Amino acid sequence: MIPRYSRPKMTAIWEPQTRFRIWFEIEAHATDALAELGVVPKEAAEAVWAKGKDATFDVERIDEIEREVKHDVIAFLTHVSEIVGPQARFLHQGMTSSDVLDTCFAVQLARAADILIEDVDALLAALERRAFEHKLTPTIGRSHGIHAEPVTFGLKLAQAYAEFARNRERLVAARKEIATSAISGAVGTFANIDPRVEEYVAAKMGLTVEPVSTQVIPRDRHAMFFATLGVVASSIERLATEIRHLQRTEVLEAEEFFSAGQKGSSAMPHKRNPVLTENLTGLARMVRAFAMPAMENVALWHERDISHSSVERMIGPDATVTLDFALARLAGVIDKLLIYPENMRRNLDRLGGLHNSQRVLLALTQAGMSREDSYRLVQRNAMKVWRGEGDFLAFLEADPEVSAKLPAAELEAMFDEGYHFKHVDTIFRRVFGRA
Amino acid sequence: MIPRYSRPKMTAIWEPQTRFRIWFEIEAHATDALAELGVVPKEAAEAVWAKGKDATFDVERIDEIEREVKHDVIAFLTHVSEIVGPQARFLHQGMTSSDVLDTCFAVQLARAADILIEDVDALLAALERRAFEHKLTPTIGRSHGIHAEPVTFGLKLAQAYAEFARNRERLVAARKEIATSAISGAVGTFANIDPRVEEYVAAKMGLTVEPVSTQVIPRDRHAMFFATLGVVASSIERLATEIRHLQRTEVLEAEEFFSAGQKGSSAMPHKRNPVLTENLTGLARMVRAFAMPAMENVALWHERDISHSSVERMIGPDATVTLDFALARLAGVIDKLLIYPENMRRNLDRLGGLHNSQRVLLALTQAGMSREDSYRLVQRNAMKVWRGEGDFLAFLEADPEVSAKLPAAELEAMFDEGYHFKHVDTIFRRVFGRA
Amino acid sequence: MIPRYSRPKMTAIWEPQTRFRIWFEIEAHATDALAELGVVPKEAAEAVWAKGKDATFDVERIDEIEREVKHDVIAFLTHVSEIVGPQARFLHQGMTSSDVLDTCFAVQLARAADILIEDVDALLAALERRAFEHKLTPTIGRSHGIHAEPVTFGLKLAQAYAEFARNRERLVAARKEIATSAISGAVGTFANIDPRVEEYVAAKMGLTVEPVSTQVIPRDRHAMFFATLGVVASSIERLATEIRHLQRTEVLEAEEFFSAGQKGSSAMPHKRNPVLTENLTGLARMVRAFAMPAMENVALWHERDISHSSVERMIGPDATVTLDFALARLAGVIDKLLIYPENMRRNLDRLGGLHNSQRVLLALTQAGMSREDSYRLVQRNAMKVWRGEGDFLAFLEADPEVSAKLPAAELEAMFDEGYHFKHVDTIFRRVFGRA
Amino acid sequence: MIPRYSRPKMTAIWEPQTRFRIWFEIEAHATDALAELGVVPKEAAEAVWAKGKDATFDVERIDEIEREVKHDVIAFLTHVSEIVGPQARFLHQGMTSSDVLDTCFAVQLARAADILIEDVDALLAALERRAFEHKLTPTIGRSHGIHAEPVTFGLKLAQAYAEFARNRERLVAARKEIATSAISGAVGTFANIDPRVEEYVAAKMGLTVEPVSTQVIPRDRHAMFFATLGVVASSIERLATEIRHLQRTEVLEAEEFFSAGQKGSSAMPHKRNPVLTENLTGLARMVRAFAMPAMENVALWHERDISHSSVERMIGPDATVTLDFALARLAGVIDKLLIYPENMRRNLDRLGGLHNSQRVLLALTQAGMSREDSYRLVQRNAMKVWRGEGDFLAFLEADPEVSAKLPAAELEAMFDEGYHFKHVDTIFRRVFGRA
Repeated sequence: MIPRYSRPKMTAIWEPQTRFRIWFEIEAHATDALAELGVVPKEAAEAVWAKGKDATFDVERIDEIEREVKHDVIAFLTHVSEIVGPQARFLHQGMTSSDVLDTCFAVQLARAADILIEDVDALLAALERRAFEHKLTPTIGRSHGIHAEPVTFGLKLAQAYAEFARNRERLVAARKEIATSAISGAVGTFANIDPRVEEYVAAKMGLTVEPVSTQVIPRDRHAMFFATLGVVASSIERLATEIRHLQRTEVLEAEEFFSAGQKGSSAMPHKRNPVLTENLTGLARMVRAFAMPAMENVALWHERDISHSSVERMIGPDATVTLDFALARLAGVIDKLLIYPENMRRNLDRLGGLHNSQRVLLALTQAGMSREDSYRLVQRNAMKVWRGEGDFLAFLEADPEVSAKLPAAELEAMFDEGYHFKHVDTIFRRVFGRA
Repeated sequence: MIPRYSRPKMTAIWEPQTRFRIWFEIEAHATDALAELGVVPKEAAEAVWAKGKDATFDVERIDEIEREVKHDVIAFLTHVSEIVGPQARFLHQGMTSSDVLDTCFAVQLARAADILIEDVDALLAALERRAFEHKLTPTIGRSHGIHAEPVTFGLKLAQAYAEFARNRERLVAARKEIATSAISGAVGTFANIDPRVEEYVAAKMGLTVEPVSTQVIPRDRHAMFFATLGVVASSIERLATEIRHLQRTEVLEAEEFFSAGQKGSSAMPHKRNPVLTENLTGLARMVRAFAMPAMENVALWHERDISHSSVERMIGPDATVTLDFALARLAGVIDKLLIYPENMRRNLDRLGGLHNSQRVLLALTQAGMSREDSYRLVQRNAMKVWRGEGDFLAFLEADPEVSAKLPAAELEAMFDEGYHFKHVDTIFRRVFGRA
Repeated sequence: MIPRYSRPKMTAIWEPQTRFRIWFEIEAHATDALAELGVVPKEAAEAVWAKGKDATFDVERIDEIEREVKHDVIAFLTHVSEIVGPQARFLHQGMTSSDVLDTCFAVQLARAADILIEDVDALLAALERRAFEHKLTPTIGRSHGIHAEPVTFGLKLAQAYAEFARNRERLVAARKEIATSAISGAVGTFANIDPRVEEYVAAKMGLTVEPVSTQVIPRDRHAMFFATLGVVASSIERLATEIRHLQRTEVLEAEEFFSAGQKGSSAMPHKRNPVLTENLTGLARMVRAFAMPAMENVALWHERDISHSSVERMIGPDATVTLDFALARLAGVIDKLLIYPENMRRNLDRLGGLHNSQRVLLALTQAGMSREDSYRLVQRNAMKVWRGEGDFLAFLEADPEVSAKLPAAELEAMFDEGYHFKHVDTIFRRVFGRA
Repeated sequence: MIPRYSRPKMTAIWEPQTRFRIWFEIEAHATDALAELGVVPKEAAEAVWAKGKDATFDVERIDEIEREVKHDVIAFLTHVSEIVGPQARFLHQGMTSSDVLDTCFAVQLARAADILIEDVDALLAALERRAFEHKLTPTIGRSHGIHAEPVTFGLKLAQAYAEFARNRERLVAARKEIATSAISGAVGTFANIDPRVEEYVAAKMGLTVEPVSTQVIPRDRHAMFFATLGVVASSIERLATEIRHLQRTEVLEAEEFFSAGQKGSSAMPHKRNPVLTENLTGLARMVRAFAMPAMENVALWHERDISHSSVERMIGPDATVTLDFALARLAGVIDKLLIYPENMRRNLDRLGGLHNSQRVLLALTQAGMSREDSYRLVQRNAMKVWRGEGDFLAFLEADPEVSAKLPAAELEAMFDEGYHFKHVDTIFRRVFGRA
């Protein structure tokens, strides 16, 4: 998590003040529940809220205490007792540090997921708008980087839309995975605390109850969460890579928006580089990498060990902040993407109509020729075009074996571009529910 | 995928004969749909089924053709035309190789997922049976590898059950992710094939329709699938690690079943090693590793490149076969696990009652002592026990500051074990729906 | 490791027969050393060699025994005693299974490394040949996929050569890492075997002695080995990606060799796809992925656990076989690469001389203009060219602010291409030691 | 990189002020070389040093400029011109941003490597001291977590020493990998700058010359660097895991030092948890994870793209800072490790002498019994001990088939512990060069 690739709304989730605020709420709600059950005095619970509700926690003071006691939650509770006074001794009754830490982490990740889902929504909106704008803008489809058959630029964006719509669903599922609360005590047996406290706190914090915790919430949940972020990042890489390709000098079908004062290169003033999408490619690598330690975190020893903690202190903020930044950057790129239909047309025409080869192949087969012979005929004419010797339609018309099967008029009709786009509406309806 | 770690039912999915059979079905169903649409003669479709339905494909012959044409689907179609005769020329009309390859891969992964879900079910059954068997078998709960407070062995297994129940849900979701079909032609525009063919084939093959494909099915689906397998593998590692710990000489609370003829070590005949769970730890590393290239596969260039193919040829079989083997092995380990309640008791008693320390701490607080003072008192007595100087209860009773607050009878009542297990039923009901 | 991506020389290393042969040699050499030390009879050692030297081990028989005893080395020794007779009882004296397994694995990895080094040598030879062939073939250098300044195609290959020369050194270092032998007994103390046996066997097997083993050779060595293969694979990905870019329809500066019978696409007969380098991209992902479990293998428990074994049974063959295949494939691609200097020229001229912008910028600065002003002047003319409005040189000559500083003749001289290539020889000498 | 896991000496390397200082030095040295070659005035070079040598760069001002020009090096140069005045226009002549960025990154990584090597040296010193201290402290060796045969605690530490000595060598090699300089211009051709400038700057900055750069230094170097850090981290995990095992309640052969004020658990005051080594386990996962994006960074497009940059902005600091912290923490853990020889003895004696089983097995074989029979005899007596039925030596003496071959006196001699330690000196000499 570095400022350059961070946005304040997401980083705020990970600031100490936010963390202490969530800790406080968990402890205070738990004290309410304990008071309700008659375990601690109601006045204690009331005092905690009265004094702590609007308190700002002194992060440096807590750090100072932690340096002495070497325990973060004890340091926090000590500081809270400085704010609340003697009634604070009823806080944390029967609880263990992880009850606070893990429930807090769940709240933070759930909030982070909410922002990520919003980010995806913004990206989807940009993709949908641009997709409809270019629903019928012809462009060459490429497989293996080689011209294949025409598609529309809208179809490219529709694909990205469908992919990010899936990612949205995955994020919703991932959020659900981690939004659980554990207030179950030292080894998860509720020996010193009633399960109803957990239920109460969970409801108050917007979480469900972890069915069986063992001091900690099981880390398969977090592994799934961070793995999902890795998949979303990989989709970002895909779309970013597409734009990088489209901006290549020889292709130039689209370009990242380039602001007035921006300098592309200290040496080559003419350059306009796809630096945002290149950057996204790198950020995707990082978010993906965080999935691995999250998976290694699952195999905690017995009821728990604390090896997951250092990992999560890093990837909790780093993965969510980086992905938030990347999604927002990508939405911006799509929103302002410079799209050049005339260059798409120029590239499309570049291969002298060769992209209609399959259609000719099919027509020959349907005209009774064997698949092998049809293939041979088409390929022999295609290769001449490929070598830059001329136009595909002209060669086909001049090939007696072809013209014996397909008269000129029929051949010419096969070079109509609309043929390729007749099902664009069908696909749009599948993706957007409208065309 | 190596024989040692493979089971036939899963490997069968990945055999050439299975693959060619699925290819055939896709092509034949597509031909049916094309015939229905009047694109190809109905007799052609019928001939394909008549000749191909029960055919065994000659894998070596197909390989031979592929060596010449350097294209697997063309090689296959050529061989099918050898079986079916001239009517075979109507096969694959308007389709592209990936229509066959990707739809086939979806069928294979869906079948693999079905087996994995069955595997998890078998594991869940074993976990549930043993969990209820040891629902109230006391054992020490350990955090950081250090004795904490008592749990029951059934609770440990209940945790594993809940974790694998989540994994089951994840596998169901992962299966849904990849169970889509694409019959959309060279760049996904349906230029040469009606979308109704795709719908027909999808239904026949038990798949849904890919909303927008681009010659290929988008690889974010597969990334999610293999990432999910990595999470399941990580849960296997967790449970395997637990058993490895329990089998340690000093702990010996459980042991992998050891058959009569088995030799533990070529050098040390007394040894009984947890080799199955150690093996599972390694297998988990492998399955997890496969998630990474699956994520890198997402960013295909433009409408597609073929870089994903070599990865999937490896991880398709390797990840599913290894995970199937690992799940089955783990189910066997749990099913036959030797469990030693008397050793659990011996270990539990080892710390002279120290695991009741928190309860004493709470009682002191509730008796009006400050949290800090209570902590100090408990720790000073606990440390003596820790140093092996005697029994915790005795020290507490002898400590005037403690006894001033807690009379002997009250203290003794705190060392009742049942206290720790009073909510086991609650947890079991959460996990199993019954207690 | 799948046949499609395997070469026999490398797969042979991993066949059971090879493994058993190496095991035999280790055991037989150890017996020689033990005989020399008087621990076992010399006749026993002689008998072992006499009967075993040319024996073919019955892999199925060994598997059969292993199924009973569940221990691979014991199964092997039992089979050897079937071949050698009663003298075989002197084999394996004071040794532990891992002495055989780990020393064998070292031999296999060292042999694999030798092949990989040969592979790199073949690749280096191809790169060097083609680099000199195109030492002065002009082509546009691209940063961010955008035209920058001219380079030569030979320089591109020289870069790849230097990179693989580094990879060669890394492989030599990696080979040294893993080429150690351990014959140190059950926990590495040599309790039952003299260290001189280890020294003898190591020398005979071409290995050095592991300074301190603990039943097993420490796995940091193997982690380093497989991490190195991951780096080599990443270099393969880089060169493969370069070729994929060069073969793009719009670029077409180079192409993979396309044999006569090859079919590019079942649907589009004109297509010539960079399928080999796309394939290499995928294979690189796999080899890279294997580094992760190799690193996780390092942290074995205490003197050893066996979790590394299943990982190594997979990645030992898979990583080396795949990398061998990939290196050989890449060497073939480079060796036969179709290179199109005329297309390079066409692309180079595409931007109307814009790639000389930096030179003009420098000249303006040297003529006394501030860097900021120079930049502004160059950029304003460059942008017109970029928008396709004309030729860079013409615009500059027509710009009064520019011509005030740089007369036409001077400007024209700046568009001489040789300017960019004057240090090619220097670079070649650095890389190849000759120019 | 989070403060909790950071040490100031390493973080200082990554602070903006340090980076700008290195940038300045590179630019100023390059200007010296250019002045020497007559390309820029000597007074310019002198002015740059005179004004810039002791300047503090205004990081906020540079950020402000960057926000406008969106280019970090241009922003820096603009700020330098504010400090140096008009002579600054001679800076950066013929150079490209990456010349500065990549050479700077090399300096930073080399300095980081120096610190890491010092860290390993400190760890090695601690390991050596403790290893000699416990050279002959007997402890049970464990394979698979199961008691095997005796080792000494010194041997465990000697193994760790040897492993970290290898890691030291690897770090030295990794440092050499990345300590290269590129001042080669926009595409690495030295079109606008003499190669002698690069040589001069490299020498001044303590680097070697990159043989062939392409605007950027090739990233296989960095991949190797970060992969090496991943291996070192894995070794940290190994030693940390060992200590975590030793501190387990049932084992308790060693413990992390526990300071006076430290609180182990908010709930269980008796607990002393191996939190430092658990933390190290997590940190190791992070450092290892960073190897993966570093490898993905290798395949930059053509002469360069900038996707590596965001990755390196993160892992440059994160990997080195985290590893530095982890190595220092581990050195502290070893230095102050509480070692309990009496507990080692207690554990060692726990299995009733069973760890001598192999020696008995060998003696039976040497007394003429077949290996199979010997194995059977030893195992049948061992199993009784294993079941807790008594002492191994007693059972053997009572077994008529054993005593027929081995008289009591001979058997008793086999239970002498010194037997296992006779080669400890040999191993120590191998590892430390002294015993």
